[in-house]
Amino acid sequence: MPSIELTDPVFRVYAIAAAVMILKVMSMSWLTVVRMLRANGGYRSPEDTKKTLLNPEASATQTDPVEGVERVRRIHLNDLENVPFFLAAGFLFVLTGPSLLLAQVLFYGYVVTRLLHFLAYLTAQTHDVRATLWTPGSLIVLYMAGQVLWSAFVA
Amino acid sequence: MPSIELTDPVFRVYAIAAAVMILKVMSMSWLTVVRMLRANGGYRSPEDTKKTLLNPEASATQTDPVEGVERVRRIHLNDLENVPFFLAAGFLFVLTGPSLLLAQVLFYGYVVTRLLHFLAYLTAQTHDVRATLWTPGSLIVLYMAGQVLWSAFVA
Amino acid sequence: MPSIELTDPVFRVYAIAAAVMILKVMSMSWLTVVRMLRANGGYRSPEDTKKTLLNPEASATQTDPVEGVERVRRIHLNDLENVPFFLAAGFLFVLTGPSLLLAQVLFYGYVVTRLLHFLAYLTAQTHDVRATLWTPGSLIVLYMAGQVLWSAFVA
Repeated sequence: MPSIELTDPVFRVYAIAAAVMILKVMSMSWLTVVRMLRANGGYRSPEDTKKTLLNPEASATQTDPVEGVERVRRIHLNDLENVPFFLAAGFLFVLTGPSLLLAQVLFYGYVVTRLLHFLAYLTAQTHDVRATLWTPGSLIVLYMAGQVLWSAFVA
Repeated sequence: MPSIELTDPVFRVYAIAAAVMILKVMSMSWLTVVRMLRANGGYRSPEDTKKTLLNPEASATQTDPVEGVERVRRIHLNDLENVPFFLAAGFLFVLTGPSLLLAQVLFYGYVVTRLLHFLAYLTAQTHDVRATLWTPGSLIVLYMAGQVLWSAFVA
Repeated sequence: MPSIELTDPVFRVYAIAAAVMILKVMSMSWLTVVRMLRANGGYRSPEDTKKTLLNPEASATQTDPVEGVERVRRIHLNDLENVPFFLAAGFLFVLTGPSLLLAQVLFYGYVVTRLLHFLAYLTAQTHDVRATLWTPGSLIVLYMAGQVLWSAFVA
């Protein structure tokens, strides 16, 4: 049985993949900030059009949608729909005792395809490309959750 | 004290409920895909109106909102507001050492009411019905988090 | 090595912070409900304008956006972008074996700044104030995830 420790080979792979994905999702907020500052707009709250130290050139149009900002928000929402469930399913999947190789394929496969999906979305590739890069990650989480269910029932 | 293993009776109930909920939430993305394909629209990104292999009948109206698709997105968002916190609160709640019966009532009660909430939302039942089916799940998570807080303070 | 038990001093601090944050996020749904009832509107689904027991004064305008409700939804979305990753990163961070003091500073620092961010957002303080109160929490999660990555690699 794998133990919940960073020295356990399988759990270690999970922890690395989880940490990378957490850093990735948290970076989306900062990317939104960078793009809002660059566009001097794309804000969402009425009070965001007030003149302040960080917003010297205030204008009522600053809450109008800006596509470059909205794009990062869509990417961010896609992360919220996927990554929390990867984090939870991956943790429980470790407890089913997978081989190190399988864990590496699934956890690192998830990270790689999610990062490629991010690049495809950010650079506005076609929906086909984006869907193709989204699918493996979704199937990996579904497989892991299914395996947890199976292991819990036969346990 | 319960141990974090799929063979532990209480943790096993948690793992089953967690896996079912993860499968449920991840399915929402696929249901969105199915409905977008059926409507040939409801997309969100400007590049999604381009003609591609998977989108032979491209049209500028494909990013107009489609109610059937938006409904699944609202259901999905409702899941994001609830399920990640169930997954985390449930895990910590197991560590408070509840009886197997209490764990079964709370974890399986959560799963059943959330699935009924999904059906009510998908079939556009009244707000009253939806709210009635949403409330137990919310109270279960609040109770579990409260119990964790209590146990941590008296520990 | 810290153990995953509520009696472990470091894990206990994590569990308290996690439980408070879960209670906080779950409360956002109830705050949305309170504000929708008070405004008798701000609903999102077409069926929500139907006359029912809980909605005796039904009207087609009830799905128009209401700023007081939308504000809570923005706060809620901000939570979804942050708290699930705090919960996951914090759990893994405990496994890196931080000192109790560091754990207290990071976990309680996160809780305090997030609650202040909530108050600032709810009362429509300037974007500068909100950003200042959001930043520490984001940096804490990034630091914890970075520490997990580092510990997993040198482990």
